[in-house]
Amino acid sequence: MSEGEPGEQAYGLGRILALSDGVFAFSLTLLVVSLSVPTATSNSALASQLLDQAPTYFSYIISFVAVASIWYGHHESFKYIRRYDGRLIALNFGSLLLIAFLPFPTAVLGRNQQEPLAAILYALTLALSNLFFAATWWHASHGRRLVRSDLSPQVVRLRFYRTLGGAFVFLLSIPIALWRPIAAEIVWSVFLVAIFVLLRGAPGFQPRHDS
Amino acid sequence: MSEGEPGEQAYGLGRILALSDGVFAFSLTLLVVSLSVPTATSNSALASQLLDQAPTYFSYIISFVAVASIWYGHHESFKYIRRYDGRLIALNFGSLLLIAFLPFPTAVLGRNQQEPLAAILYALTLALSNLFFAATWWHASHGRRLVRSDLSPQVVRLRFYRTLGGAFVFLLSIPIALWRPIAAEIVWSVFLVAIFVLLRGAPGFQPRHDS
Amino acid sequence: MSEGEPGEQAYGLGRILALSDGVFAFSLTLLVVSLSVPTATSNSALASQLLDQAPTYFSYIISFVAVASIWYGHHESFKYIRRYDGRLIALNFGSLLLIAFLPFPTAVLGRNQQEPLAAILYALTLALSNLFFAATWWHASHGRRLVRSDLSPQVVRLRFYRTLGGAFVFLLSIPIALWRPIAAEIVWSVFLVAIFVLLRGAPGFQPRHDS
Amino acid sequence: MSEGEPGEQAYGLGRILALSDGVFAFSLTLLVVSLSVPTATSNSALASQLLDQAPTYFSYIISFVAVASIWYGHHESFKYIRRYDGRLIALNFGSLLLIAFLPFPTAVLGRNQQEPLAAILYALTLALSNLFFAATWWHASHGRRLVRSDLSPQVVRLRFYRTLGGAFVFLLSIPIALWRPIAAEIVWSVFLVAIFVLLRGAPGFQPRHDS
Repeated sequence: MSEGEPGEQAYGLGRILALSDGVFAFSLTLLVVSLSVPTATSNSALASQLLDQAPTYFSYIISFVAVASIWYGHHESFKYIRRYDGRLIALNFGSLLLIAFLPFPTAVLGRNQQEPLAAILYALTLALSNLFFAATWWHASHGRRLVRSDLSPQVVRLRFYRTLGGAFVFLLSIPIALWRPIAAEIVWSVFLVAIFVLLRGAPGFQPRHDS
Repeated sequence: MSEGEPGEQAYGLGRILALSDGVFAFSLTLLVVSLSVPTATSNSALASQLLDQAPTYFSYIISFVAVASIWYGHHESFKYIRRYDGRLIALNFGSLLLIAFLPFPTAVLGRNQQEPLAAILYALTLALSNLFFAATWWHASHGRRLVRSDLSPQVVRLRFYRTLGGAFVFLLSIPIALWRPIAAEIVWSVFLVAIFVLLRGAPGFQPRHDS
Repeated sequence: MSEGEPGEQAYGLGRILALSDGVFAFSLTLLVVSLSVPTATSNSALASQLLDQAPTYFSYIISFVAVASIWYGHHESFKYIRRYDGRLIALNFGSLLLIAFLPFPTAVLGRNQQEPLAAILYALTLALSNLFFAATWWHASHGRRLVRSDLSPQVVRLRFYRTLGGAFVFLLSIPIALWRPIAAEIVWSVFLVAIFVLLRGAPGFQPRHDS
Repeated sequence: MSEGEPGEQAYGLGRILALSDGVFAFSLTLLVVSLSVPTATSNSALASQLLDQAPTYFSYIISFVAVASIWYGHHESFKYIRRYDGRLIALNFGSLLLIAFLPFPTAVLGRNQQEPLAAILYALTLALSNLFFAATWWHASHGRRLVRSDLSPQVVRLRFYRTLGGAFVFLLSIPIALWRPIAAEIVWSVFLVAIFVLLRGAPGFQPRHDS
């Protein structure tokens, strides 16, 4: 009995994706715990208490979009992956560790928006997560180790540079955060908006007729 | 290798649904965190502390039913979707952002039942979530872009107006909430009960004999 | 295009199960939040602080086993379900509402072990959850509406009485809780241990040779 | 109608895995809740407050890696399991109970790093979880009860001793923790790093050409 049977590879990849999607979904939902619920005695008191948390809403949205964009990259990369090995699982867990950790730097940033350290911790978490994903793709695609043997070099390179690009933007924002945390946050926002514009503008698939 | 291969489309849609179901399930369960656990020294003290939270139970149930009905609409819409593109993913994430955020306005409403602002924040979250789902369906069904090419115009219109109808009811409740928050809550309750009566009365499927 | 197509029924049932499993899994995991984390200055202080929480551990384990046994009943019932309709989804959501709510009565019971009301709230939640599941099975199996048409009457009756049996035990424990909460907890423990003994003793499947 | 039909076995195993992966994913993500979010008035105050939590980060990472490695063992074992029975479900739930519980001993350890009791509670949780998994595999593989009938004795033994090995290391660390908690933590770290080195070095699968 060989370990590389098609059925067992499908089982193995399926569970890696199920676990990853669980961690992604839970991280997306747990982010909301960083918001604290006010109890107010008047409508205007409630308004001012809700507005006091504005930085936390901002870091909530940034984190949601960042996790969504990492999920999208994970989704696009694993579309081409056909087999798994222990190293793929280990590298994928490295990235999930940082995704699961993200609600913590998000909450720290929300409550300490002025402090460079909060922005650095945040940027470092997302940079490392992207680096692990870039390493995952490199491991899978190098020599077509775990992907289809006929995968075009363009797709291999494109996916690698996209994940590396995310790591690069977040690493670059660290010296900016040392200067002004708010400037780093503007860099992240512009980057994530740009990703979503590109994502929305991705070429549509041709309609096909299914039975 | 074309991006539109059947196997890759099935993979892609499968993971979009897995992530969405994860966010729905966690949001449904995380709502319970808004309830605070009393520690009482007598049975009657416990009763009064539990009863003091009555508005929170109410907003817990309303939110559970609202997420359940949005999930049902998502379920019915994606039944007809056969392909995906980047824009579908982006619009779906827009809606999930608001579903994942819902435990926060639910808790705010539970602790500030008298304040119009709490009801407005709540109604706005659910209205926006429904608007994103209406946009998702519009994008997928317009010109049969991502659905079966033989999907009847009735189904396309029905699903669009149903999601839009949800958005409309919650938007309409905002001026009502400015007048009396409790009146807005009655509107939501009647609307959600009506949905569940309709859902329960949906025509059953004919029994078929499977092997 | 008929709504009852095999592919769409499989999609529909698959997502109902995915959402249900998500709520079950999250409820199982969220129960742990009811335990409070001590910070102690000595080993014996830590021991006494951990032991002070003994009732909470007890209600944690009872709840875990109760959710596990409801999941097992859900699993065994849906094994025979081949189609879905709106009413099945509505009844299933009724049960999930109570499963998602369970971490709250669990925490209330853990902190108010002496109070009959805490035991009653707990028993009522699990009784109602079982009642909804019994109704789900009744709806699906009555006239073989959503199950295989050749399903034996024995299986139909067995599954119905098992879920109803759970509801019965928890309802019965309510007057007992009014007398002594601890007696109700003993009833639940004996019942859940009995279920697991039966479950462990369920007849094994014959080994078959798969390719 | 026999209970052992292939379709129903696939359904049954699929849901056991879906529930298990849900519990693993939420446990991995819920670990982050043990970290407390500081609010600081200066960058250096934030740094010192973040550094004060260093033991909690350490126990967070140890727990993440421990759950990841248990998930990997679960994944490798269930690759060979083809059928289920009630006992398999009961034993699997025993292990999941401890996985879902782990965020509690993790938080206790993070806040009471000096106390032997915190380290013992932690080691006991992971030892018991591994023991349940070893029992699950023993039950499934003994006499090829639930696995492929042609599964080699080497695979059966290897999987059994691997899960038992984990239990052994954590049980062994209990007397060490009584002497010095920090020494027990070093034992766990070395063990988990060793697992990941082995995992990364697991022989890769041969590239195959898929259509």
